[in-house]
Amino acid sequence: MRIETAQREQLQQWEKELEQQYQRICQHNLSLDLTRGKPAADQLALSDSLDGILNGDYRAPDGTDTRNYGGLEGIAAARELGADILQVPFEEVLAGGSSSLTLMYHAVLTGYLFGFAGNQPWKDLKAPKFLCPVPGYDRHFAICEQFGIALETVPMTATGPDMDALEQKIRDDNDIIGLWCVPKFSNPTGVTYDADTVDRLAQLAKIANPGFRIFWDNAYAIHDLDHQVKLPNIREAALGNDTADSVLQFASTSKVTHAGSGVAFVSASPANLASLKKQMSAMTIGPDKVNQLRHARLFPELSQLKEHMHKHAEILRPKFACVLEHLDKNFADSDLGQWEKPQGGYFVSFNTRLGCAQEVIRLSAEAGVKLTPAGATFPYGKDPENSNIRIAPSFPPLEELDTAMSVFVLCVKLASVRKALEAA
Amino acid sequence: MRIETAQREQLQQWEKELEQQYQRICQHNLSLDLTRGKPAADQLALSDSLDGILNGDYRAPDGTDTRNYGGLEGIAAARELGADILQVPFEEVLAGGSSSLTLMYHAVLTGYLFGFAGNQPWKDLKAPKFLCPVPGYDRHFAICEQFGIALETVPMTATGPDMDALEQKIRDDNDIIGLWCVPKFSNPTGVTYDADTVDRLAQLAKIANPGFRIFWDNAYAIHDLDHQVKLPNIREAALGNDTADSVLQFASTSKVTHAGSGVAFVSASPANLASLKKQMSAMTIGPDKVNQLRHARLFPELSQLKEHMHKHAEILRPKFACVLEHLDKNFADSDLGQWEKPQGGYFVSFNTRLGCAQEVIRLSAEAGVKLTPAGATFPYGKDPENSNIRIAPSFPPLEELDTAMSVFVLCVKLASVRKALEAA
Repeated sequence: MRIETAQREQLQQWEKELEQQYQRICQHNLSLDLTRGKPAADQLALSDSLDGILNGDYRAPDGTDTRNYGGLEGIAAARELGADILQVPFEEVLAGGSSSLTLMYHAVLTGYLFGFAGNQPWKDLKAPKFLCPVPGYDRHFAICEQFGIALETVPMTATGPDMDALEQKIRDDNDIIGLWCVPKFSNPTGVTYDADTVDRLAQLAKIANPGFRIFWDNAYAIHDLDHQVKLPNIREAALGNDTADSVLQFASTSKVTHAGSGVAFVSASPANLASLKKQMSAMTIGPDKVNQLRHARLFPELSQLKEHMHKHAEILRPKFACVLEHLDKNFADSDLGQWEKPQGGYFVSFNTRLGCAQEVIRLSAEAGVKLTPAGATFPYGKDPENSNIRIAPSFPPLEELDTAMSVFVLCVKLASVRKALEAA
Repeated sequence: MRIETAQREQLQQWEKELEQQYQRICQHNLSLDLTRGKPAADQLALSDSLDGILNGDYRAPDGTDTRNYGGLEGIAAARELGADILQVPFEEVLAGGSSSLTLMYHAVLTGYLFGFAGNQPWKDLKAPKFLCPVPGYDRHFAICEQFGIALETVPMTATGPDMDALEQKIRDDNDIIGLWCVPKFSNPTGVTYDADTVDRLAQLAKIANPGFRIFWDNAYAIHDLDHQVKLPNIREAALGNDTADSVLQFASTSKVTHAGSGVAFVSASPANLASLKKQMSAMTIGPDKVNQLRHARLFPELSQLKEHMHKHAEILRPKFACVLEHLDKNFADSDLGQWEKPQGGYFVSFNTRLGCAQEVIRLSAEAGVKLTPAGATFPYGKDPENSNIRIAPSFPPLEELDTAMSVFVLCVKLASVRKALEAA
């Protein structure tokens, strides 16, 4: 199906056929959900031994009684797990509660109210701004929106953010004090930043406000589908450029063990970590060390962690294949949309023809398939091209996903044809 | 021993004898700790069945898969536990992570940056202030200090804060926007607020800034030592006065199950809860529901919870008795100090003669007994009378506590005699 070259009669004919198919599907009363990157039940079950794993022994390897108060940085054994995931020294890791989003929120809070490493608090800038590559992750945007930090977009490319555009913005505006990154299997495009991108990111501190921080949300650090995709080490790049203070790294076991009750990590330079700990010390006596110990027991060595992630990949692989097969079969020779083939992570990002995303999502919803709201991958929920749709294939069982994708491709076609007819 | 009426020779004689005793004790190389209200290992062990209690079944009673993302308010079964502890309706309870201090921090953050229930954010006031009854809890003060919210003290009495002083301050200063309370077994004096106090507190909103909030930290709601001490219900008092929005209640299972990995609760009016949830929604997808479910399984009914708290009381009772016995035996007929006899909670508050606390704590530390730093029970660490010392008897085993208290009473005597000699 090629819209651009189709005659009006052809479009009308397509619309009629698609409309009939759509009406039939609507009668099935489907209730399917592709909205969020939630692990499926069989993925969660991989970690069900967590409850009971302590076998009555609540002592951490270093002798800490994890049941009692104390230890703002988390137990050493958990920090080592975070260090393995982020490939950084354990001394630079703080192991927190169950949510890396919460750690990011407190890092923004720290920068905003108190300033990192002796720098000016962001609130004292005239118009503090974060850069966000788009499409991106709505929960990152929401943190900035809550603090009244403006969001400026830069386009994502196949190798990471458009670095020319990004550097230019930083040169032009000293009030840019942050950058959101999902550097591996980017949410939602699935892209992994290449070496040149990482190196240029590590140099941003040379042209940015001294308070500028890169929020390196490495949510999918070990979430490869087939082979291991290598993300260049931002810490090493920053150390090489004498810009170590400009990077804050985040990770968690949310998509490794149990999504709502994992362990989250932040890694940063000693100066940044001191700023974070100062903020946190007023807020908590320490994180849940018992749950940290459970995780350390589940993954005593990196090899167990890797083996565990292979099991996740085995469950996720057919789901990604299903999505890509539907897209390939229906749109490979068309002008109805573009997408990337991610090698890991939790999403497939699909771009419709200009101005069609909202209608695709509406049609899908009416047919019983919930998709992430149009615009969610852009700040303030506004996709200027109204074309990006984030598909999250992990949660539904394979058969449901297959049905949902049939509905989705049909809705893409119907919305595209109708849009073309309106314009004709 | 009575200092006031002692002759100089008598004081010198006492000093000599006490000095000798002190030197002997210093040679024992003790290492004892009465600093913080930490449960002892045998108390923690009461809840060791938590790990493994799920027996592979991660479903909450309402069907929620606790392993996955979602549910900002916590699971219903956990909220019901919080409702039991705080004696409020479950709909007004949010069950959070492991720390009620964190919930208080976020409540202050909400008031400070965004404002509760449509009220002006506290940061926009000229000089936002919290009132704190003293002696009080240092971690409450630390939250305000971090946000630059000034702290004004009001004296504690045997029935709660000095309400005349408190009301006067609120009448005099519209920038007072908060009040810290530990209403039952107050930290550190052990006092429980009486009905008149609670009723007057519930009426404060009538004379205060509309953004004024009472932080009702009911940390020891069910932590009675002997008989159940009844705290009047602040929610009901506030409803009766049409001031429900002026109260935020907090509790946790930190001193019920495992101190570092319990479940924390906040209870508030629908308008306040909406403000809190708005703030939290940018920060987290939801709390650790698996741990919440563990707690719900441990305490399916209020009766199990009560039985569990009786076991804590059995362990704590001899420790409080030990502290009080040392104080009674040494100081009942003296002018060396005053103290309350708490019916529950975690502390005994001791007031030395004017200006002696710091020296008692220094002497104890040198003899190997760590006490909470002098001044910690006052904002900015400054006890104007340098007399309050918080004794936390829960953590050490009984024999160690007994030794530590021998050191303590000796140090009180030595510091008091020396001070008197200086002044003479």
